[in-house]
Amino acid sequence: MSELTMEKLVGFCKRVGFVFPGSEIYGGMGNTWDYGPIGIELKNNIKKLWWKKAVQESENSYGIDTSILMNPMVWKASGHLDNFSDPLMDCRECKTRHRADKLIEEYQRKTNNFDVNPDALDKAELYDYIIKHNIKCPNCGKLNFTEVRNFNLMFETNRGVSEDKQSKIYLRPETAQGEYINFLNLQRTTRAKIPFGVANIGKAFRNEITPGNFTFRTIEFEQMEHQLFCHEKDAKSFYDYYKNFAMEFFISLGIPKEKLKFKDHDKLAHYASAACDVHYKFPFGWDEINGTHLRGTWDLSRHQEFSGKSMAYTDPFTNETFVPTVVEHTIGCDRLALALLCNAYDEEVLEGGDTRVVLRFTPQVAPYKVCVLPLQKNLSEKARQVYKMLTKKFMCSYDESGSIGKRYRRQDEIGTPYCITIDFDTLNDESVTIRERDSMKQERIKINELLGFLTPKIEE
Amino acid sequence: MSELTMEKLVGFCKRVGFVFPGSEIYGGMGNTWDYGPIGIELKNNIKKLWWKKAVQESENSYGIDTSILMNPMVWKASGHLDNFSDPLMDCRECKTRHRADKLIEEYQRKTNNFDVNPDALDKAELYDYIIKHNIKCPNCGKLNFTEVRNFNLMFETNRGVSEDKQSKIYLRPETAQGEYINFLNLQRTTRAKIPFGVANIGKAFRNEITPGNFTFRTIEFEQMEHQLFCHEKDAKSFYDYYKNFAMEFFISLGIPKEKLKFKDHDKLAHYASAACDVHYKFPFGWDEINGTHLRGTWDLSRHQEFSGKSMAYTDPFTNETFVPTVVEHTIGCDRLALALLCNAYDEEVLEGGDTRVVLRFTPQVAPYKVCVLPLQKNLSEKARQVYKMLTKKFMCSYDESGSIGKRYRRQDEIGTPYCITIDFDTLNDESVTIRERDSMKQERIKINELLGFLTPKIEE
Repeated sequence: MSELTMEKLVGFCKRVGFVFPGSEIYGGMGNTWDYGPIGIELKNNIKKLWWKKAVQESENSYGIDTSILMNPMVWKASGHLDNFSDPLMDCRECKTRHRADKLIEEYQRKTNNFDVNPDALDKAELYDYIIKHNIKCPNCGKLNFTEVRNFNLMFETNRGVSEDKQSKIYLRPETAQGEYINFLNLQRTTRAKIPFGVANIGKAFRNEITPGNFTFRTIEFEQMEHQLFCHEKDAKSFYDYYKNFAMEFFISLGIPKEKLKFKDHDKLAHYASAACDVHYKFPFGWDEINGTHLRGTWDLSRHQEFSGKSMAYTDPFTNETFVPTVVEHTIGCDRLALALLCNAYDEEVLEGGDTRVVLRFTPQVAPYKVCVLPLQKNLSEKARQVYKMLTKKFMCSYDESGSIGKRYRRQDEIGTPYCITIDFDTLNDESVTIRERDSMKQERIKINELLGFLTPKIEE
Repeated sequence: MSELTMEKLVGFCKRVGFVFPGSEIYGGMGNTWDYGPIGIELKNNIKKLWWKKAVQESENSYGIDTSILMNPMVWKASGHLDNFSDPLMDCRECKTRHRADKLIEEYQRKTNNFDVNPDALDKAELYDYIIKHNIKCPNCGKLNFTEVRNFNLMFETNRGVSEDKQSKIYLRPETAQGEYINFLNLQRTTRAKIPFGVANIGKAFRNEITPGNFTFRTIEFEQMEHQLFCHEKDAKSFYDYYKNFAMEFFISLGIPKEKLKFKDHDKLAHYASAACDVHYKFPFGWDEINGTHLRGTWDLSRHQEFSGKSMAYTDPFTNETFVPTVVEHTIGCDRLALALLCNAYDEEVLEGGDTRVVLRFTPQVAPYKVCVLPLQKNLSEKARQVYKMLTKKFMCSYDESGSIGKRYRRQDEIGTPYCITIDFDTLNDESVTIRERDSMKQERIKINELLGFLTPKIEE
């Protein structure tokens, strides 16, 4: 097929109903996106499949759903208030603002010179690199920047409607802190022994000035995070376990190994002793869809210090008392949805020269599992009976407008794995034609055998 | 049983892991709550069951997931920027701030005098009522209030990190506007004919000064909303349909009819021609868990006016062109979870005089469907095999600590409908004992018959 570009994908997603630009009728809003009818089903399937693996099928793993708005002390303790910032510089000539690290990345991509990782540079080093390499303002082309300053990425708001009694609070920039501050509640109510894990799916917000690449980097996004609380001596083996857990999860969703790779962090946060991402090969290059982090005792120790509540755990067998170590694994839900869309998109040249767009989703990931199609409109009563029966079990589509070939194509391009056609013979023999998306093979099957045929293919 | 008070319920939910106070280790945060391991499963079940009814099983009904952060013009058009406010007054004596309508409600409850609905009073009328009835400051007991002023309930934040280029944006106070501004995208991508519906589940935020009653009124909450776009002439019958749809949904979750009632709004929004809530009988009184609103063409007309984009629809049969009418049905997900907890909570006096706490959830609503219990720890290998098999299909718990009777009680009080006990006979006969929560009856069943026995009882 012709190469999949991000531009083509954005247009495709908008055309068929995966993703719309946020606030589109008002000219958009920063870099926000709304998930359309098939986009939300795709995302819900991802969340459901991850929750099943990370919580339901993992003994000693529990869910939680914590608030977006938290006491600001959480962000003081976590370090976000002081350190969660982007290195920004202003162009003195045209007054535009830029991320210094992104200017360098852009320059490195253009010159194919990856001598230094900009993430590993401090403010002064970023500035020096830009001067030394003569990297100019992308807006006006001049080289007259201010020094680099750090700007906090958290959205601020105020609690309390009275002007004089407002207190500044923040939209959470990650879900993880909600799990850490509930460590005592979690341990107490589950009576879990260490090692145990907690999973959280929810929105986070970052006031970034340079979001981009469609839904890859946005100011509002959804995370799927899992924190394992364990003894320090076991942390490394759990770290390896969760690295592979993430990789295997992506493969189970249909992404081939060769489009995935591990990428160790070049620069570790001061509290982390190991960090590794999984990168997916996007049309714009390899980039992160997951991170596994060995965070040590940093998180619980800091919350212990700032809250005055002991986060110590006493092992019932050894009687050792210690602050647990955290192994985090986190997945960007929107990034994974984007990776699955990129991965599934195909343009297939058919015999005769026609091209069809087909999304090669696994049945578990596909928004609709089945589409029911009456061959002609006067068969719709029978078709609706079949549709009604199947909707008790699966997300189904129903389509009675246009030629049957056109309707097959519509389902192909949104990834529906099975189409069921009701024709005139159906009225006599209670049989339908079922067509498989990838092979386009059709077979005849009794209506009362449909659920038995479909269920093992669709349910994991 | 002894009466269920909210105080008892809050303590119970924290003790067993349904709901924890938000940011608890830092002394809390306004009125926010975190859902614990069984609370999140309860909420997920509610959302899944509603989505199944409102989207999956409803032909011509589609999902969407829109951003929390939207272009501020959305709130100008919707009227929220100008009109979404609470009537507040300050006590001149002690400087505390109060909601005038809530002061009156409180007074009416105490005096059992419901002569006037405070929602129907304007600012001056609220003030006059308070003076006339001598309603004093609940903090200092004096009567010296300022006049009533309206304060906007939307949380504000700023987009863009540079001080000079910030633009004020808002956390959405409801999900509905996301559906309205996507009307054209929805209609285009689904090719749906009117009437068609769209459902959205997501968080909304309101900067209220007097939240309360546990998770009933909070500053951050989750809505499940469905908007039907239809022709004006059909609106009244759809309005009746969705009133009953909500009522039947609540009954299907196990709430008895006598704890539910319809309550028409005393005062309609100027654009609404009908509005009706479903009230549940909470320990603190009857209150709203759902609303059905006949909103007319207000929403789409306003967005048409402010965006300059035509929201007109042309009927393919009659050729009539019109702006569709909206029938909204909305459910507070947190309120429904609270109602289900209140409804399920029971203290049963057993033969012999003991009392057990039991949550009488339906199997569909229950957080865990099954708990697997080895009679003794040396049976845990076999027990884990059964647990592993069942987790492929259901959310299950596993418990091997304490006497078997104590473990049954733990599952009773979190509403687990089935307990499976592995004993020494299991090793020989591949059979287990299955105990039903409400009847406490036990029967013996083969392990390979468990899924067949449980599945029809647990899946809807």
